Amino acid sequence: MEKLSTQPYKGTRDFYPEEMKLRNWFFGKISETLKLFAFDEYNGPMLESLELYAAKSGDELAREQTYNFTDRGGRDLAIRPEMTPSVARMVAAKMGELNFPLRWFSIPNMYRYERPQRGRLREFWQLNVDLFGCDTYEADLDIIQSAIAILRAFGADENMFKVHINNRRFFNDVIAAVCGTDADGAKKVSKVVDRKNKIPREAYVKDMTELGLTVSQIEQIDALYTMGVKEATALCPESVGSMELVSLFDALCAMGLDKYCTFDFGIIRGLDYYTGTVFEVFDEAPENNRAMFGGGRYDNLVGLFAKNAKVSGVGYGMGDVTLENFLFTHDLVPDLYKSEKKVLVARFDDVPVEKYCPIVDSLREAGLVTSLYTGIKKFGKQIDYAVKGKYSHVVIMGGSELERGIVKIKNLETREETEVAASDVASALK
Amino acid sequence: MEKLSTQPYKGTRDFYPEEMKLRNWFFGKISETLKLFAFDEYNGPMLESLELYAAKSGDELAREQTYNFTDRGGRDLAIRPEMTPSVARMVAAKMGELNFPLRWFSIPNMYRYERPQRGRLREFWQLNVDLFGCDTYEADLDIIQSAIAILRAFGADENMFKVHINNRRFFNDVIAAVCGTDADGAKKVSKVVDRKNKIPREAYVKDMTELGLTVSQIEQIDALYTMGVKEATALCPESVGSMELVSLFDALCAMGLDKYCTFDFGIIRGLDYYTGTVFEVFDEAPENNRAMFGGGRYDNLVGLFAKNAKVSGVGYGMGDVTLENFLFTHDLVPDLYKSEKKVLVARFDDVPVEKYCPIVDSLREAGLVTSLYTGIKKFGKQIDYAVKGKYSHVVIMGGSELERGIVKIKNLETREETEVAASDVASALK
Repeated sequence: MEKLSTQPYKGTRDFYPEEMKLRNWFFGKISETLKLFAFDEYNGPMLESLELYAAKSGDELAREQTYNFTDRGGRDLAIRPEMTPSVARMVAAKMGELNFPLRWFSIPNMYRYERPQRGRLREFWQLNVDLFGCDTYEADLDIIQSAIAILRAFGADENMFKVHINNRRFFNDVIAAVCGTDADGAKKVSKVVDRKNKIPREAYVKDMTELGLTVSQIEQIDALYTMGVKEATALCPESVGSMELVSLFDALCAMGLDKYCTFDFGIIRGLDYYTGTVFEVFDEAPENNRAMFGGGRYDNLVGLFAKNAKVSGVGYGMGDVTLENFLFTHDLVPDLYKSEKKVLVARFDDVPVEKYCPIVDSLREAGLVTSLYTGIKKFGKQIDYAVKGKYSHVVIMGGSELERGIVKIKNLETREETEVAASDVASALK
Repeated sequence: MEKLSTQPYKGTRDFYPEEMKLRNWFFGKISETLKLFAFDEYNGPMLESLELYAAKSGDELAREQTYNFTDRGGRDLAIRPEMTPSVARMVAAKMGELNFPLRWFSIPNMYRYERPQRGRLREFWQLNVDLFGCDTYEADLDIIQSAIAILRAFGADENMFKVHINNRRFFNDVIAAVCGTDADGAKKVSKVVDRKNKIPREAYVKDMTELGLTVSQIEQIDALYTMGVKEATALCPESVGSMELVSLFDALCAMGLDKYCTFDFGIIRGLDYYTGTVFEVFDEAPENNRAMFGGGRYDNLVGLFAKNAKVSGVGYGMGDVTLENFLFTHDLVPDLYKSEKKVLVARFDDVPVEKYCPIVDSLREAGLVTSLYTGIKKFGKQIDYAVKGKYSHVVIMGGSELERGIVKIKNLETREETEVAASDVASALK
């Protein structure tokens, strides 16, 4: 028979213990930080109705970007490609019972059907942090603060990342102010501005001119990209968006977080979804300078599920691959095995297995990671096993030690051996 | 537009924060225990080649029991319904590099296409614990010991569960001994014995008689179901299976674990897969008396992937729903919110938001779960929010407190209020 392939499916990863330890370490640090911020963890199923994604992105796009299929009951299902539709569904299902403002996070695994490339895999994990049911800038502040806290918890500083912040209300209002048009006219201009960095300069100027903008107006919009928040918001001081931006930056400043943040008119993040504060967190490494993740404020999260219900939210999503790249780029991943005690109790054929049990039990009771070598092999082989398995110590008790009521403890780093009474092994190793 | 359903897909669950907390608690306890036993965590992708399951169970059964579909590259995929094929693939892929005996565990989510019913859902999590690459009974002992340790970590005692143990080698040999036949004849008898409790008594006796067994031989096999391990193994003392059983029970006894274990000739667990020790853990509650989970020794795990390679293993799988039922049945789930400190800093409209930040920061730095109420609502509403959100304390600082440099701390359980200097709030709450 043809042997099966040992490779995981394209775009997915096997997590051997070393990789799993890394993943547990960084998901653990994220959870810890968010729990300290009183965010509650939630999760939902991997499979959802395809219509959940079709309602947001259109049927065609939903089918194209997800792994989807029809179950035997004729129901169209998809493996979740993102968490927002699931969390919207969950919030809508318990609208009356939930305690708003909700502070929720999740680190679900998900699948997207795309060509695997650096930083983009078909299976990935994505942190989702959201604050639902608070309409004011304080929620935006809280959310941005939590993103900064996560990166700082890993030891990242202001030279390694920067939060670029803009506001969609301000964006619309300042364009209307510069162009002297109504909201409708501003919307058309916005669509061109959104494409500014994706199309050649001439095409941009041509499109803007066709919408009736003068050279001076185009230059005024250009200037916004280099302005600070005070200067920019002064162009439309009455805009709610301006007031939100100013309040947000004032608070960040008072909290000593301004060094991690910068105003950036270039942050737009899709025209239809976000409605207020928007932000993207950039990796500041010159060789890796790019947006790592972002988020912002969106309205009417539950509209697809519940009539007359409205819940606003602000949040962000962060992929595990991006974060891992960032941590490695800035050398923020410590040796996770170092300074961890792990004890192998070696076995000798002149000692019955049960004689080792009190030793193993006492070590585990003392909270020490311990295993008894299973099976009997030459002592040298057991030492090789301990070294390869990143054990820090080996406890040695052959027939002669047993007779004397002692054990030897071998420190695998220093190679030193010490002798202690068998009953003292746990306290000697603590 | 028709509103979308807020219900999760049939047979799957939403995990709201309360359910997620429970899940994190019990997965956490399991991981902690297994790590203390020096088991390493691993994981693999949710999607695997369908042929991985077809190779084990046949194409038809694999298609029937899994969620499967064809990707755009024409590859047949399945959402994993179990972990064994994935772990076999992973072990085979790195045979030369891995450090045997491997001590591995995983708590993956998986999907089975079946009719949802009590204890069986379509999406579930399953603990998998395995020890690969040790052929002797010591590995079986280690594995059984870990299963007992997990249940004990939850506070379960010998009145709540029991590990029923048998040995497939012994099973075959004792049947051969009783019938006086060769291995081939014993195998035919084994197949009937395997069906003993699933078919009427007369049909069983008829089938056994047709295979040439006498009434006395049938009775001798019946008697095995009520025997202890010594008596049973005395029927074929030369069998490797007998020796393994005796060694295993002797060691369990010396370790004080015999009260959790019993010999049970009725434990067979599928004729083709297991090759040595087999066991099932029973819930001892009279209203819920049944096998919760089980496992055993199997050979040649990697045979489907690698020619001439052989790795034996011993392990078990435990579903989250079963474990949850067990813990609730025996009242082993504590109030996970009790005695947890969680602090809400209330907001007043005469105090600017940034004045609260040093307080919030100092509480979080002291390791206290803290949030600042986002937005401004009446104080009573904020207290309601805190109570519903299971906060233990509310920190109160309005304009007059700010002026005096103090805050009030309200204990939500006792309803007591105390006054402390704003700078002492963290130490007062610790």
